[in-house]
Amino acid sequence: MAGNTFGTLFKLTTFGESHGKAIGGILEGCPAGLQLDLEAIQHELDRRKPGQSAIVTQRKEPDTVEFFSGIFEGKTTGTPIGFAIYNTNQKPRDYSHIKDSYRPSHADYVYDKKYGFRDYRGGGRSSARETASRVVAGAIAKQILGKVQISAYVSQVGTMKLTKSYQELDLTLVESNPVRCPEPGTASEMEAYIKKIKKEGDTIGGVISCVIQNVPIGLGEPVFDKLHADLGKAMLSINAVKGFEFGSGFAGVQLKGSEHNDAFNPDGTTKTNNSGGVQGGISNGMDIYFKVAFKPVATLLQGYETIDKEGNKVETHGKGRHDPCVVPRAVPIVEAMAALVLADFLLLAKTNRI
Amino acid sequence: MAGNTFGTLFKLTTFGESHGKAIGGILEGCPAGLQLDLEAIQHELDRRKPGQSAIVTQRKEPDTVEFFSGIFEGKTTGTPIGFAIYNTNQKPRDYSHIKDSYRPSHADYVYDKKYGFRDYRGGGRSSARETASRVVAGAIAKQILGKVQISAYVSQVGTMKLTKSYQELDLTLVESNPVRCPEPGTASEMEAYIKKIKKEGDTIGGVISCVIQNVPIGLGEPVFDKLHADLGKAMLSINAVKGFEFGSGFAGVQLKGSEHNDAFNPDGTTKTNNSGGVQGGISNGMDIYFKVAFKPVATLLQGYETIDKEGNKVETHGKGRHDPCVVPRAVPIVEAMAALVLADFLLLAKTNRI
Amino acid sequence: MAGNTFGTLFKLTTFGESHGKAIGGILEGCPAGLQLDLEAIQHELDRRKPGQSAIVTQRKEPDTVEFFSGIFEGKTTGTPIGFAIYNTNQKPRDYSHIKDSYRPSHADYVYDKKYGFRDYRGGGRSSARETASRVVAGAIAKQILGKVQISAYVSQVGTMKLTKSYQELDLTLVESNPVRCPEPGTASEMEAYIKKIKKEGDTIGGVISCVIQNVPIGLGEPVFDKLHADLGKAMLSINAVKGFEFGSGFAGVQLKGSEHNDAFNPDGTTKTNNSGGVQGGISNGMDIYFKVAFKPVATLLQGYETIDKEGNKVETHGKGRHDPCVVPRAVPIVEAMAALVLADFLLLAKTNRI
Amino acid sequence: MAGNTFGTLFKLTTFGESHGKAIGGILEGCPAGLQLDLEAIQHELDRRKPGQSAIVTQRKEPDTVEFFSGIFEGKTTGTPIGFAIYNTNQKPRDYSHIKDSYRPSHADYVYDKKYGFRDYRGGGRSSARETASRVVAGAIAKQILGKVQISAYVSQVGTMKLTKSYQELDLTLVESNPVRCPEPGTASEMEAYIKKIKKEGDTIGGVISCVIQNVPIGLGEPVFDKLHADLGKAMLSINAVKGFEFGSGFAGVQLKGSEHNDAFNPDGTTKTNNSGGVQGGISNGMDIYFKVAFKPVATLLQGYETIDKEGNKVETHGKGRHDPCVVPRAVPIVEAMAALVLADFLLLAKTNRI
Repeated sequence: MAGNTFGTLFKLTTFGESHGKAIGGILEGCPAGLQLDLEAIQHELDRRKPGQSAIVTQRKEPDTVEFFSGIFEGKTTGTPIGFAIYNTNQKPRDYSHIKDSYRPSHADYVYDKKYGFRDYRGGGRSSARETASRVVAGAIAKQILGKVQISAYVSQVGTMKLTKSYQELDLTLVESNPVRCPEPGTASEMEAYIKKIKKEGDTIGGVISCVIQNVPIGLGEPVFDKLHADLGKAMLSINAVKGFEFGSGFAGVQLKGSEHNDAFNPDGTTKTNNSGGVQGGISNGMDIYFKVAFKPVATLLQGYETIDKEGNKVETHGKGRHDPCVVPRAVPIVEAMAALVLADFLLLAKTNRI
Repeated sequence: MAGNTFGTLFKLTTFGESHGKAIGGILEGCPAGLQLDLEAIQHELDRRKPGQSAIVTQRKEPDTVEFFSGIFEGKTTGTPIGFAIYNTNQKPRDYSHIKDSYRPSHADYVYDKKYGFRDYRGGGRSSARETASRVVAGAIAKQILGKVQISAYVSQVGTMKLTKSYQELDLTLVESNPVRCPEPGTASEMEAYIKKIKKEGDTIGGVISCVIQNVPIGLGEPVFDKLHADLGKAMLSINAVKGFEFGSGFAGVQLKGSEHNDAFNPDGTTKTNNSGGVQGGISNGMDIYFKVAFKPVATLLQGYETIDKEGNKVETHGKGRHDPCVVPRAVPIVEAMAALVLADFLLLAKTNRI
Repeated sequence: MAGNTFGTLFKLTTFGESHGKAIGGILEGCPAGLQLDLEAIQHELDRRKPGQSAIVTQRKEPDTVEFFSGIFEGKTTGTPIGFAIYNTNQKPRDYSHIKDSYRPSHADYVYDKKYGFRDYRGGGRSSARETASRVVAGAIAKQILGKVQISAYVSQVGTMKLTKSYQELDLTLVESNPVRCPEPGTASEMEAYIKKIKKEGDTIGGVISCVIQNVPIGLGEPVFDKLHADLGKAMLSINAVKGFEFGSGFAGVQLKGSEHNDAFNPDGTTKTNNSGGVQGGISNGMDIYFKVAFKPVATLLQGYETIDKEGNKVETHGKGRHDPCVVPRAVPIVEAMAALVLADFLLLAKTNRI
Repeated sequence: MAGNTFGTLFKLTTFGESHGKAIGGILEGCPAGLQLDLEAIQHELDRRKPGQSAIVTQRKEPDTVEFFSGIFEGKTTGTPIGFAIYNTNQKPRDYSHIKDSYRPSHADYVYDKKYGFRDYRGGGRSSARETASRVVAGAIAKQILGKVQISAYVSQVGTMKLTKSYQELDLTLVESNPVRCPEPGTASEMEAYIKKIKKEGDTIGGVISCVIQNVPIGLGEPVFDKLHADLGKAMLSINAVKGFEFGSGFAGVQLKGSEHNDAFNPDGTTKTNNSGGVQGGISNGMDIYFKVAFKPVATLLQGYETIDKEGNKVETHGKGRHDPCVVPRAVPIVEAMAALVLADFLLLAKTNRI
C-alpha cells in the first residue's frame, strides 16, 4: 500500500487498522527545539474521540497517545516523533457478521478485489480511526504555526445550513455545543435532527467550513503543489469527504471577472477576498477559507440488503457503535490536516530565496 | 520552487515560463514498449491551443511539441521522455505595463513577496501556458490506459447550466462546438454569452464535468493517496480552479445514508452510483465522475484600478490577448490530469499483491 | 530530521533513540498475501542483538519485535506494517557523564551544532540501535525475495583477512562461530584477537563481504538509482561504515579493459564476473558481491581526553557496555539493507514494460 | 524508468540518450535571487567535453547548454531551470554493428532483458553522455555553495598512484595537465601511459580523489540520508564507478579505536581527521575527502569475441571514438555530483530548528 505518507518536509506516515493492536505514526521533519504542549495534543484527540456526546458513536475508547521518540526533556529534538494509540476497545465480534459480505458504500468489496483478501475487522485500514494519528501530528503542526489560527466548524447538517459567513459568526462558540456549530440556535436544531436520524437507525451528511487566519504571505508552490491543491487533497483524503471548495468556490463561477477580482488596498491587502487567501497557489496574507462536504456515514443500524462474496443476497444490519453524522467529530480532523499542509509549506518557504 | 512534479511512478516534472524560450517537461516511468501515437498527442495540444475559435484568446501559437528522448523507432523505451514546446509568439511588450504594478487576482504580488522579484512577462511560471506540458504527458498517459475512457465537457458557463447528467448526454458531441458543451442548444447560448462578455472586456467562470469509464477495480490507495484525493489535487492544481466534487458531491450531504448508499447487484456493480466510482479511495469499477469549478479569468480588457509596488493607485487595463472564459480550452487539461492520475495508479496497482 | 525513509515502493521509515521508550518503524509497500514467517524475523533480530557472545557488548536486551498492523491471520494485508522494539534495558545513568562533553569520533558535537541541543542518552538517534528496525524490515524483505539468497560474512578484522573468494568458502559455516567468519581457523584467530582488544579497553575495525545469488535479470534503474548505487548508499548508511566496493572494486582500476571485461557465454552468463553482477546499474543475473568497511568503534573503555561544551579539556573513559568490534553483529544488518534494496527494485521492475 | 531524479529539495531530473536529439534536465529547488555566472557553467561543461586533449575521445561535440527557463535578467527566479544540450555529432552508423550483438561489460544485454528492446545507438540512456546534464546542475550548485570549495583530481591511473595526501599537493595544478593530476611528474607519466594503452586499442581504470573544504557544520541527516551515504550514492551513480571510500576508508579498518578516533581541539576542530569531515552522517566542519574507483572503459578498439541476440559467437571490435581512460573527464563529474549533494543538504539544513 503506497500513499501512507503526507507532506514533503513536515511529513506524517501512519499505520494501523481499527481493530489491530494499535494505530500510530511517525512524524518527520519537525524542527528541533519546539517546547511541546502535550496536553494540547491530547486535547485535540479528545475532540475527536468517540463517546464524547450523545450524538456521536458510543464506543468508549480513551485514545491516549504514547510518544516513543523525538522528544527530550519536553522539547522536540529534530528526530522523528514515533507514536501509537492503542486500540483498547476492540470488539471484533461486532464485525464477524460482515466477514463474508460486503457492506454497501464501504471499502470491503474493493479491498478484497485489490489485495485478494482483507482485514474485515471494523473496516481495517479504511476505518476513520486512522485519522486519530493525523490529529496527533496536526496538533504538533499547530504548535509550530505560531500565530496562524485554524478554525473549523460545522456549517451544514443535511439541509440545515448556516447562512452567515465566518466573519459574521463568533467562532469562540464552536466548542460550546456537541455539533460544533458556532450559532447556538442552529446548533440545537442540528443536534435534535441528528438524534432523530440516529433513532431511525439512519445517518446524515454535512459540511465543515474552515478559516485560516494570520497566514504569512508566500506559502505554497506555484504549479502542482499549490497551497489550495494540497489543502484540497488533505481534505479529500479524510474518510467520507465528497467535495472541496475554497474562496468563492462553485458559486464563483457565476460571477464576471469584474465582479470576482479582488481589488488591492494600498498595503497589498484586498478589498474583497473571493480568492480565499490564495493567488496562483500562494498565500497572499488574506484569510484562507474553504468548505468540505461529508457524505452520510455508510453504516446503518437499520436493516438493509447486500451481497456476500459469492454474490448471494443477504439481509443484514449494522452492529456495533457508529456515528449518525460524522461532521462533529471531523472538525478537529479538518483542522489537523490544514495544520499539516501549512507547517509543511512554512518549512519549504525557508528555502525560497538565496 | 518545490512542487513541479506530479505522480509517484508515472511522473511528470515541468519547466517553463509563458514568455521564456520554451516550456516543457520530463515524463518518467512510462513503461517500455508502448507504440506511441504522436498525432494523438499533437491533437490534444491542438484542443488546448490558443486561437482555435472566436471565443478563446486570439494569440497564435502553434504549440508543436518536440520530443528529445525516450522514444525509439516509434516506441517508448522505458527511459524518460523529455520534451519542449517553444514559445514562438512572445510579445513581452504586452507586459511591460505590468512590470511595476500588481494585477488584481493574479499571482504578481505573491511572487514578488515570496521570491523577492519575479519574471513579469505574462505571469511567468504561473501562466496557464504551463498546462500545455501537462496535456502532452496526459496524452501519453491516455495511451497506456487502454480501454479506460476519459471524457470531459463544459457543463456550466456563468449561470447557464446543463441540467442533464452525463448519462443523458451524447458525449460524442463535445467537440462539435467551440464551447465543448455536448448539448448543442445550450452550447450555442453559451457561445453567444461568452462573445457578449468578451465584447464587454469582461470574463466569466464555468464548470467542467468529467466522467471516466471502464476503470479497473482496485486503483487508488486507501489513506492519503485516495484515488479521488489525487484527482482532486490534480484538478485544483489547474489554474483558476476553485472547487472539486465527485460522485454525489456537495449535494450528497443532504441525503440520509439509507438514500445515499449504493446497493450492490449480485455481480458487484451497484444499483446507484452516489459514490462516484470510488470506495474508500479505491476504484470500484463503476463510472468515476466529478465536477471542477473555474473562476472567471482575472485579466480584464476593460479598465480597472490597482496598485504599483509602492502601493500607489494606478489606472490600467489588460493588454494582450486573453480568454474571456477559460473552460472551453481547459477541457483537454482536465482530461490530461485525470489521465496522469489513473496511469500512475495503474502502475502502482501492479505491485499490490505478492 | 529528513532522511528517515529508505526505498521507493518497498519503503521503511524508522523512529527511535537508543534510550527512549522504543525504537521501531513503518514498512510500507509490502505486497498483500505474503505468509509471514514471524520466527524468521525474530531470528534475524537475535543475530543482531547484544549479549549473544563474549565478543560483543554484554548489554542484555531481548529485542523482541511487536507488530501493530499490516498482518492479519498470518499474512500481510498490503497495508503498512507498524512495529516497535521496546527499550527494556535503558541505563541513562551510563551516559550522564557525557551530558556535557563530546566523545571523540561520535556524533555528540555535530548534533549539538545542528539542532541546538541533543538527546545525550546513548547517542540518541545516532545510536546503532536504530539498525534493529532495519533488521525487522529486511527480514520481511527476504521473505518476498523468494529464491534470491543474500549471504554476508566477516572477511576482515583489523589486519586479519580472508584471502579466499566467496566461491572458495563454505558460507554455511558463517553462523558456526561468534565472529561470523566462514573459515573456522581464521575465525578462531579473529575471536582471540577481538578478546585481546577488548581486554585493552580498545576496539578494532573490520570488513563484511556479501554475496547475493539467484538475482533476476533487470533489477535496478539506469541513471541515479543504479542497483549498486542504492546498495552502496544502503551500506554507507549503516553506522561506522567508511567504504563500499562491488565487483572488482578498487583493485579493478589497475586492470586493462581487455582484462576486466566479462566475456559472454552463449546463454548470456559471463565467463568472469568483474562486473559484480551489475551492468549499467542493472542486475545481469550473475552473483552480486561487495565489501563494506567498518571503522573501529569510537567508544573506548580505556581513558582518553576530550572537551566539554565550553571547550575545556576533560579526562574521561567509556562506561556502559560496548562492542570491541562491530562486524560480527553487523552481518545481519548488511543482509537486511541488501534485502531492502532488492525488494524495492523487484517491485519497481513489475512496472518496466507495458 | 524510475530513478532519474537526484536530491530532495535541490533536485535534478535528467533525460536523454547519447544519440537522440538532446540530453538535458530540470533543476528544481534552486533558490530565487542567485546571480548566475553562465560562463562558469559552460566552463565546467568544457572540462567534461570530448575532444579536449589527445588522451580523451576525439569525438567533437561543443556541448553548449541552452537554458529554457528559471532565469530572468541573469538571476534565478526560484522556478525550475530547464535546459538541453543538443547532440550535434551523432553518428548512429558507428553503432549499427552492435544493433544485434551485446558488447561485453556494457548495459546492452540487461537493457534488452529489462525493457524488451533498447535504443542501441551509443548505449542510449546508459551512455556517460548523460553526465553532462549533471555537470550543468552541479555548476549551478557550486554557485549557491559560496565559500565551500570542491576539488577533485586524478590520484591513480592503472597501477600509477599518487602517494601524497591532498594536503601535500598543490591543487591549483589540477588543470595544468590533461590527466588532471596535481603532481606534474606523475601526470606526465600517466599521460604517456594512457597514450600507450590507447595505441594498444585497450583501456585502463583509475581513481579520483576529492576534497571538500569550508563545509558548514551540520549538513547531512542522521539515519539513511547520511552526508557520506548520499555522497557515496552520488559517486556510485556515475558510469564505471566500482567503489567509494571516505576518510580513513578501507585502510581504517586496520586501526584500533585509540588510533582512529579524532581527538578534539578546544575549538571543536579535531587534531586528526580519520572521520573525513563527517560524524554520524553530519558534517563536522573538517575537510571532507573521499576516493572514487573507476573501472577501465568497456569499449575496446581491439578485436574481441562476443555473442549476438541468439547467443551465436561474433567477432567484432569497437568503432567510433572512445576514451582510453575515463578519469580525466570524470573529474568535473565527481565535483558536480558532490556539489549537488551539498547544495541539497544546505537547503535542508535551513529547516533544522524552530
